[in-house]
Amino acid sequence: MDIQNFINQLSIDCVIFGYENQQLKVLLSKSKFKGDFYTLPSGFIFQNEDIEEAAQRVVQERTGITDIYLQHFNVFGKVSRKREEFLEKLIKLNYSESEDQQRQSDIYQWFTKRFVSIGYYSLVDIQQVTPQPSDIDESIGWYPVKDFPTLIMDYNEVLENAYLCLQSDIQDLSNIYHLLPEQFTMKEVQDIYETITGKYFARTNFQKKVLDLDVLERLDKKFTGAKNKAPYLYRFKK
Amino acid sequence: MDIQNFINQLSIDCVIFGYENQQLKVLLSKSKFKGDFYTLPSGFIFQNEDIEEAAQRVVQERTGITDIYLQHFNVFGKVSRKREEFLEKLIKLNYSESEDQQRQSDIYQWFTKRFVSIGYYSLVDIQQVTPQPSDIDESIGWYPVKDFPTLIMDYNEVLENAYLCLQSDIQDLSNIYHLLPEQFTMKEVQDIYETITGKYFARTNFQKKVLDLDVLERLDKKFTGAKNKAPYLYRFKK
Repeated sequence: MDIQNFINQLSIDCVIFGYENQQLKVLLSKSKFKGDFYTLPSGFIFQNEDIEEAAQRVVQERTGITDIYLQHFNVFGKVSRKREEFLEKLIKLNYSESEDQQRQSDIYQWFTKRFVSIGYYSLVDIQQVTPQPSDIDESIGWYPVKDFPTLIMDYNEVLENAYLCLQSDIQDLSNIYHLLPEQFTMKEVQDIYETITGKYFARTNFQKKVLDLDVLERLDKKFTGAKNKAPYLYRFKK
Repeated sequence: MDIQNFINQLSIDCVIFGYENQQLKVLLSKSKFKGDFYTLPSGFIFQNEDIEEAAQRVVQERTGITDIYLQHFNVFGKVSRKREEFLEKLIKLNYSESEDQQRQSDIYQWFTKRFVSIGYYSLVDIQQVTPQPSDIDESIGWYPVKDFPTLIMDYNEVLENAYLCLQSDIQDLSNIYHLLPEQFTMKEVQDIYETITGKYFARTNFQKKVLDLDVLERLDKKFTGAKNKAPYLYRFKK
């Protein structure tokens, strides 16, 4: 990693949401360093890269998917926003043997300054994702938003803030389909909506609310074995 | 200005909205340089300053008021985001005579890199503001959002984006009072709401919508000379 190629003191943090087994989940890494360091997917911005491209790259590297839905939701830039403990370990692991002293010092100086972070959340179809650990990850995986481990730095606040923004943004249903497979039943939409917003609807009321938006195309019935009760499949109109 | 004290390649841009004469207005500066350079209030972030503090400082410097309502709305960070033409003039004006060659070159290098901008919009009571020009401003003043001059760089896009966010945010009336004096009539609230959202209401419907939110305290009637028709004054509950 050549720090010269990046913008100083600016990073991208991504809160990647997926939906599975009646739970909203978030993609988190556990680092190789001793001490239970859990982090959000994050990265820096190349000098020759738009910030939106950098965010796409970060999500793509950790999920393996392309064509990613991203929504900027906040910036985090307090003076106190430094990650010394975690970074000391990272720098020791990555640079202590292979780099000369001056370069080690430069990298340490660079990393331990305050970083202003640009927060994006991403919505993915969890079935399409094979989480990809980074060089410093022991593991990467999905954790329930209602019960995730303590994260390094201010990442708990970043994650909670992303979740609040998602709860607000999803109410008009304009971005919910990014969490769904290409074809889905009305019940699947309602499950996701109710899980995220905490608002519950009678089935017929929810169906009316969604169909009134005129964004869905109705397909064949889903084959379930019991033909009469089979629900319709839908997909979003392009 | 000592560039060492600032974060590199990161700036704050503020879209300051006020309301006057049935118009939503925005505070813009015209620079001293030849060529009609209009800009948004903006600034850099001191190393020992939170980004929110930097935004407060920028708005305070241009408006003279404190206790400012700010809302982050977006970030702007394309690689192409440079301001060479404007900055060449700025640097010549400010640094050519008083600085040595090396320092001039450092400043030029610093200024002409791509800057990622953190966008905030601010809502102010226009009657409380006495616009304060900066050292490089020929003038500073209020321009209608529906008819403002062409701005430097991508600031037209920044302003339009802030306006879209305001139109969305103001619908639940949670931040409209920052545009009002401490005491106001229902008609004043309705005028601002309708001007910004472009949605119109019957007077009684609007009044019901606002009073149902239970955020207003009713005060005495406003003295207008015709006592029976005098409207009530309101203020927001603390």
